[in-house]
Amino acid sequence: MLLQAAANYPVETYVMENDPGCPAAHLCHHFTRGDINNFEDVYNFGKGLDVITIEIEAVNEDALEKLQKEGVRIYPKPSTLKIIKNKILQKQFYKDNEIPTSEFIITQNRSDLQQQTNFLPAAHKIALGGYDGRGVELLKTKDDLSKGFDEPAVLEKLVSIKKEIAVIIAVNDAGENALFPSVDMVFDNRLNLLEYQISPADLPEKVLWKVEAVALKVVKDLKSPGIFAVELFVDHENNVFVNETAPRVHNSGHHTIEANYSSQFDMLWRIILGYPLGSTEHILPAAIVNLLGEEGFKGEAVYEGLNEILQIENVFVHIYGKKETRPGRKMGHITILSKEKQELIHQANRIKQTVKVKSIN
Amino acid sequence: MLLQAAANYPVETYVMENDPGCPAAHLCHHFTRGDINNFEDVYNFGKGLDVITIEIEAVNEDALEKLQKEGVRIYPKPSTLKIIKNKILQKQFYKDNEIPTSEFIITQNRSDLQQQTNFLPAAHKIALGGYDGRGVELLKTKDDLSKGFDEPAVLEKLVSIKKEIAVIIAVNDAGENALFPSVDMVFDNRLNLLEYQISPADLPEKVLWKVEAVALKVVKDLKSPGIFAVELFVDHENNVFVNETAPRVHNSGHHTIEANYSSQFDMLWRIILGYPLGSTEHILPAAIVNLLGEEGFKGEAVYEGLNEILQIENVFVHIYGKKETRPGRKMGHITILSKEKQELIHQANRIKQTVKVKSIN
Repeated sequence: MLLQAAANYPVETYVMENDPGCPAAHLCHHFTRGDINNFEDVYNFGKGLDVITIEIEAVNEDALEKLQKEGVRIYPKPSTLKIIKNKILQKQFYKDNEIPTSEFIITQNRSDLQQQTNFLPAAHKIALGGYDGRGVELLKTKDDLSKGFDEPAVLEKLVSIKKEIAVIIAVNDAGENALFPSVDMVFDNRLNLLEYQISPADLPEKVLWKVEAVALKVVKDLKSPGIFAVELFVDHENNVFVNETAPRVHNSGHHTIEANYSSQFDMLWRIILGYPLGSTEHILPAAIVNLLGEEGFKGEAVYEGLNEILQIENVFVHIYGKKETRPGRKMGHITILSKEKQELIHQANRIKQTVKVKSIN
Repeated sequence: MLLQAAANYPVETYVMENDPGCPAAHLCHHFTRGDINNFEDVYNFGKGLDVITIEIEAVNEDALEKLQKEGVRIYPKPSTLKIIKNKILQKQFYKDNEIPTSEFIITQNRSDLQQQTNFLPAAHKIALGGYDGRGVELLKTKDDLSKGFDEPAVLEKLVSIKKEIAVIIAVNDAGENALFPSVDMVFDNRLNLLEYQISPADLPEKVLWKVEAVALKVVKDLKSPGIFAVELFVDHENNVFVNETAPRVHNSGHHTIEANYSSQFDMLWRIILGYPLGSTEHILPAAIVNLLGEEGFKGEAVYEGLNEILQIENVFVHIYGKKETRPGRKMGHITILSKEKQELIHQANRIKQTVKVKSIN
């Protein structure tokens, strides 16, 4: 999606990824096969480039730091990435900067964890390498403690969540920022699965102000240009807690492609190319349904139900072109535009029931 | 733009062009260097593919015909392309099908033309190879006849034009069609240059019906699936004449990327992939300004004024990434969205005065 947006501007693009069949490989000017975790690969790819950005946190930050010293501009700054990619440092950052976040305890191993029975129910999150729900365990009772991680991790006290909100914020080199309208991430409480997202979120004005002020403080304290997605909890007393932050374009902002004047992807190019920040105003309210690989299917992807959904007037399909599906893998998303919240919810449910990502058997 | 839209669907793309530095080369899965006019190049490129479409009429139609016989689906059909790419056959087609079009005379050479003084003022258009204003001469008086073409051409009687309108129509394999809202192509009468386009066009209801009925008849009589742009004149008595038709995605439909639920590019993929036709409804009315290479500049392109224009909230910039500019070359376009017609015109004029495509000296 970042490369689709790049094609609107005079920019030459280079991509590094380990899989030469990845969706980005054919949409850039120059593709390099390489391991984003590997110092040499990242450094060799980056030297001589003007600018680097990332789409996942797990990029070798020492290589990025060296490249930055040698004059490559990096979005986000490696020092910011370092804080965010380590969940222990990220939580500590919130605490140090007096940003409201749920209580937490750092555990180095499972025997550390065993002593925290009184802290439950809590979420146990590994410090490094978690992604898309991997590396997170919900520990409700003492019996669950054995499911915890035997490596450095954060134990976060569960907040009684009324809503989960995401705010995408753009920051340019001059430190100017632009907030996109907040996003309501609606979860299925039984399955703890994201049902759909709606933007703008339906929040009382004062809660919205609090959400935006907290999200903006996070981004200001991170002291880096780029695109940031701040995910927050709102509890039943309308207290606001930061859950986590991503220093990059984010799933909670994909509706901005059609729904907002400047999308999160367009905005990142504006930042990188030194253009003015775009408008974050929405053209129409939107909902998103993520297309996840169906349980029980692994292999070459096939998409069921697209024909039915493509008959709906106000629906936009994004299939990412990943060759292989596996359970829970993000294979695409579908955006719905409408002035009417009920229409957004109705079509989101219809899409969830209709579109399935399976595999050729 | 077609390849930007392709990235939303599960499709593998192949492009043939003579210039490996062309904007499409890095946005497709497989690029082939070749001459679209050359039978062997087109045939060798096309054999084994499922589907072929074109972005310019000047593709070798014998090769397309052979490919079609061998089972490649082609949008538009080669038989339709054959009619349209030859201006003599195209005019004859309108006449044969009783489609209103300006009076015309076929001239084989300049001495033919010399005898048509009484038919002036008229436009002289070469039968084959004209594109983007090339191959067209306005002949107002007898003295102008020497500017006419010494090759097969059509001499078209000038219509007293009140408005120029374009209608984009999508047709799928089943013959179902979808009309996009009509586009008002506003010309600078002194320079005969397109100033900007506005959609939907501001036409009395009955004239709009006539425009749409005539455009639809053109496309139905062409008997081919694909995307078609029908350009029409409306005279001061509200008579409607077809000017010409393009059997492909067209400049007069570029605003549909942001302004309509399904863009002309999205629509062509839906047709090709056998999905339902999308909605042509507009999300917001739109204007387009084309970015043409400035007179007097030739070479590596630089874009003046982008920073100012990118501050406008409701503006979308599309720079095509063509490496070299030359006078009049289409280098990009800028779309404006607004409910207010005056705002569309105001911003269109501002963009025209501000953005200039020049070259590094």
